Formats: sequence, structure tokens, C-alpha cells
Amino acid sequence: MRANVERKTLAEAAASLERIAPTRASQPAYSQVYLRAEDDRLVMRATNGELDLELAIPAEVEETGALAVPANLFGQLVRSAPGERVALRESGSALELESGAFATKLTAADPESFPEPPEVGGEVARIPPQAMVRAISTVRYAAAHEEYRAIFRGVQLELYPQRFRAVATDGFRLALYDVEGAGGEEVKLVVPARSADELVRVAKDASEPLALRAGSGKLAVEGERFRMVISLMEGTFPDYQRVIPGEFVLAARFEAEPFRQAVERLRLLADRQTQRVDLVFSEGKVTLGTEGEYGQGREELVVETEGEVPFEVSYNAQYLIEALKALRGATRLKLSGAATPSVITSEEDPGYRAVVVPLRV
Amino acid sequence: MRANVERKTLAEAAASLERIAPTRASQPAYSQVYLRAEDDRLVMRATNGELDLELAIPAEVEETGALAVPANLFGQLVRSAPGERVALRESGSALELESGAFATKLTAADPESFPEPPEVGGEVARIPPQAMVRAISTVRYAAAHEEYRAIFRGVQLELYPQRFRAVATDGFRLALYDVEGAGGEEVKLVVPARSADELVRVAKDASEPLALRAGSGKLAVEGERFRMVISLMEGTFPDYQRVIPGEFVLAARFEAEPFRQAVERLRLLADRQTQRVDLVFSEGKVTLGTEGEYGQGREELVVETEGEVPFEVSYNAQYLIEALKALRGATRLKLSGAATPSVITSEEDPGYRAVVVPLRV
Repeated sequence: MRANVERKTLAEAAASLERIAPTRASQPAYSQVYLRAEDDRLVMRATNGELDLELAIPAEVEETGALAVPANLFGQLVRSAPGERVALRESGSALELESGAFATKLTAADPESFPEPPEVGGEVARIPPQAMVRAISTVRYAAAHEEYRAIFRGVQLELYPQRFRAVATDGFRLALYDVEGAGGEEVKLVVPARSADELVRVAKDASEPLALRAGSGKLAVEGERFRMVISLMEGTFPDYQRVIPGEFVLAARFEAEPFRQAVERLRLLADRQTQRVDLVFSEGKVTLGTEGEYGQGREELVVETEGEVPFEVSYNAQYLIEALKALRGATRLKLSGAATPSVITSEEDPGYRAVVVPLRV
Repeated sequence: MRANVERKTLAEAAASLERIAPTRASQPAYSQVYLRAEDDRLVMRATNGELDLELAIPAEVEETGALAVPANLFGQLVRSAPGERVALRESGSALELESGAFATKLTAADPESFPEPPEVGGEVARIPPQAMVRAISTVRYAAAHEEYRAIFRGVQLELYPQRFRAVATDGFRLALYDVEGAGGEEVKLVVPARSADELVRVAKDASEPLALRAGSGKLAVEGERFRMVISLMEGTFPDYQRVIPGEFVLAARFEAEPFRQAVERLRLLADRQTQRVDLVFSEGKVTLGTEGEYGQGREELVVETEGEVPFEVSYNAQYLIEALKALRGATRLKLSGAATPSVITSEEDPGYRAVVVPLRV
């Protein structure tokens, strides 16, 4: 192997791969980055068993070949190298890296010991990267943290002909995002939330539609310059449709950002356990209030109301904040009752729907 | 108490005080901020037993008075408040805070329970704030971390008529910074490194000379808008003068930044324990090299040499990096031998001197 690459491009790719390669790996290969020079590109890969990422960057290849080196060290060296370009050269069982006046020789691992890319089934969909990124990153907050049942820690991708949906729920709240005009074969795939985060990160700079392949418990997402293979979650995603109310007693329309900021202020004063914030709707306004260990807070906001007022309802402040975080502009909070689920929708982003269950009084 | 203040100014002052007030305090008062409205200002104070900081900000005072509230919560509320101004009002044993449409009532502590400002002796010096900040922040890195003897974790301020010095050492390296033209009574004061950091932070925006008062084991530093009282360290600071060599066998002159960056690159490859980097000086250049668990690295730099070449010496890379970090432009590394202390000086910053002991081969 003998290749020359632009330092900045190599550094960016190395940084993406370092995110996949754990610093304390259960297998030696998991802490490495695999490099293969071929044609006019350098293929770089890292894997951690759950997630496999392959990137390709343009390279002047003088001699094809492959090797594997410690991912984190390689990334740090490339980031700190002094030259505009980096020369990579195989030398015995080492990688020589040169950039400007700086030269280093890294002990390399046998590339044969690096795991083969996982086999994945046929193409199930083609999705524009920005739609995929927006859908997943908008709903991801509603996935559960560690302490919950595994399936709640995933984001479900539902593919249909000409549409798809991303949905996440932790059993207490739900977020979904529908995209029209892009889809594929009818299939539901549950992606671990952390893998979903990495997919968002790597897909956000893509421009061509992403090809999705699925099979054998894996999802491969392929862009122009990357291929990510995700181990899907097993088990059945909760039947969330039944918790989304269809009839409402009150709808309030407001601007997402000032409303969210008011809830954020009140959360500071709320009870630490319940994070409870009370909303009292009356004609054309809402009064937010809370009370906790250190005192109480109150704020009045102008909103458009439609339906039954006065109306009182309480929420976990954190749930409201997170449900509003991705939104800008006119937003609707629709109540089906004081103790039954509420729905949040956005006028600017009609694909989004969030469900939040009020706190019992 | 009844006062109106600008929100931004209040938020900045609260943030400085929160840094002093520990979140898990050994005494209830330590987690609070004390507020006193008087004349045309709001005086704010926090203390943690080691460090006491009082700030004053302009205020429209309608009614004088004092109270104490949780520092961290107060800071968060002020930062997130929606208005340009904040109204503070005592109400029974609570503080009412209003800003825009947001209103809150915080349980307040009896201001009498807040510790009195410590007594400190007479003025010992007047020092321009920028000179104080530059001197302390430049040498601070050489103070020891937790594991060492207490006195090594301090920065010594040495005051003389018309000059002063800041010096820190952990026993393996030393940094000192001399300032001419400002000083006071001849006295040596050892400031805990963490208190020195806070002093730098609060003094860096001051413009008028700082008044230093000392006595009873304390140092008070007074600016236009702040008064910080620091509990000084007890014990005798090491007699560091004897480790500073006066005669050299070789001097190398180079630009601080590219030299430091080269050492940073090589450190990535150095042995993790020793952090060893080897320097081989020859006429007009130095070759830096290292070798560790993962491989080896090498870089050649052009330097001006004066004295005995070729010459080999090894250092802890981290020590070199930190000694060079505050410097820009032409810098000199002067060697008294391969196993005796070296001195680093700066042409742009002649007050600075660092001493680094080479690693034994």
C-alpha cells in the first residue's frame, strides 16, 4: 500500500470512524481502523460489532494494499500532522505516515484479522439523505434511556411505497415523523438509538439518495462516500397507534420557541422528581406555574385557544421541552383531556407529531 | 430590599459567584449567594471558606436590604429570564424575582446567617490587573496536582518595591514571571492554584490597579467592582532559586508555536509512562524523536544553535508543551547539560522563565 491523500479529508474521515471504534474494545479489531488503497481512493472502515462504517476518500494510489492501525492514535496523528497532504506507506508490518517534516511508523495489524463487512440483503428503499436525517433526528429524543426495556431504546423506521416514518417512544411519550414521496418495500426496522445518532451524523453531508438494504437482522445504508451497517434490534416495537388520540377538547396555538423557553425557566423551580409544570388555559392565554423545594414560578403567555376553556393540565416539563425542541414557528398543543394523551404538531413541519401524557393531578 | 438591575450584568455576576459556591456545600451558607441592595448598587457575595468573592453591580435601589438565596438556582433563573431587566424584591422570607412575564418567589435564608466578610490586614501593594493576570496565568501550569505536597499546589506571589514575581513549581519543573514597575511591601504569599485561577478570571476585566491587602493568613484583592479574599497556604515555598542554572552549554532559538506543535505530535507516540521525547541538536537544526508502544515518530525543525553541537537531551513531552504554551514568537531553550536543568525564555515576554529537568537516559 502506498497512497497520498489530502490531510483535512483524511482527518474528517478518521474522526467519524473513531466515533465507531470504542477506546476500550472487547476485541482488538474493534479499536482499529482498516485502511485499503485501491483505484483512486482510500477505503477506511471501523466496526464495533453493532455498527460498521466504511468511508471512501479520494486518494492518489501508487500501490494497492490494506492494513489496520489503532483508530484513535491514527486520528490524532492525522489531525496534528503539519502538512497539507499525508503520505501513507506500508513498510513490513508497519504503516509509515509522512506529512511535512513529520514522519511516523505505526505498528500495524494484519488486515486479514479485521472482520469482513457484514452480509446484508437486497435494496428495500431509496431515501433522500436530508429527509432521513430530519425524520430520525427529530424523533430520537423520545427513545428511552438505559433503564428501560431494550425495544424502547430504538427508533423504528417504517417503510412504505412512496412514504416512510420514523418513530420513537419510551412508553411515556412518543414522537413520529412522516415523510411523503420517498419510500420502498413495506418493512419495519428498529434501529438502536445510538446507531441512529451515528447514521444522522454521517448522512447529513450526503447529497445523493441513500440506498437501504435489509436482511439477516441488519440494515445497510449506502451513500456516495459511506456505507453503514447497523445491527437491528430484535423484538416487536410497541403498538403506539392506539395511544394517539383523534379527538380533542382544546387546542392551543403558539410559537414553539418562546413557549419552550418559558417551560425551561419554570422547570428550574419545579419539583425535581416530577418536573411538574401546571398549565391553566383561558381565552387567549395560558398561565404556566410550578412549585418546588426552593420556591415557585409563574409566567403568562398569549396563545390562540380553540375549545373548552378554562382548562387545567399538568406535564413533566422535560417532556414538553423535548417535544418542542426541534420546532420553530406556529405549533399546536391539542388536549384530549386532563389525564389522556396530548398531541403536539407543527405548521412548518407537518410530518411531525409528538404525544405527551399529562401528569395526574 | 427592592432593586432593579440589568439582566445581563446580573447574570454575569451570578455566574462568577456560582463558581465559588460549591454545589455540595459543607455549610448551607456556602451554597448561597448573599444579595444586598444599597446606594446605587447591588452587592453580591459568595464564599466557600477558602475563597470569598464580593461583586457590586449598578442597581436602581428603591429599598435597601439583604437576603441570601441558592446561588446556582438564582444564576440559572437570571440567565433564563425573558426580560432586559430584573426586579428583585424582598417579600416576607422570600425573594421575588420578576423579569418580563416571568415571576418567581424563592425561599430566602436569613442574611444574618451568611458569614461576615473576613478581616484582612493593611494594603501591601497596588498592581495593574493585566500584569497580575499575565503573571499568574502564565506560571500556573507548573503548580502540582492533588497528589503532591500541599505547598507545591500553590502559586507564590513575591512582592518587592516596584516589582513582583509569580512562581510555581511541582518539584520537577518551575515557571516564574517577573513584572517590573509595580510592587509593594516586601512579602511572599502562597495562593492555592485554584484560587489563583479564580483571581485571574475575575481580575481580567478590571482596568484600575488592584489593591492587595494581607494579614491573618489571608490575601484580599480589591478591584473597582470586586473584592476577593483568598485563604493563603501555610508552609514554606521551596527554595527554587538554586535549581535555576546560570551557565549553559547550548542555546537553541526557535519559534514557540511550531516547536510546541511538533512536540505535541510526537507525544502521541511517546511511551505513556515517561512521555519521553528525544532532541538531537546539530548545527542549525534539531531532530525530535520518540518511540512508544504503537510505533515511532520523528520530526526535524530548523533552529538557531549556539554552543556545543551535536547534543542529545530528552524531556517529558508534556513538560515542554506546557512550558511553551503561553509563548508566541522567538523562544530560547538553554541547556546546562544533558541531565541538569534547562531554561526556556521568551524574547517577546522577557519576564517569563521556565525550568525543565531533562529525563535521565
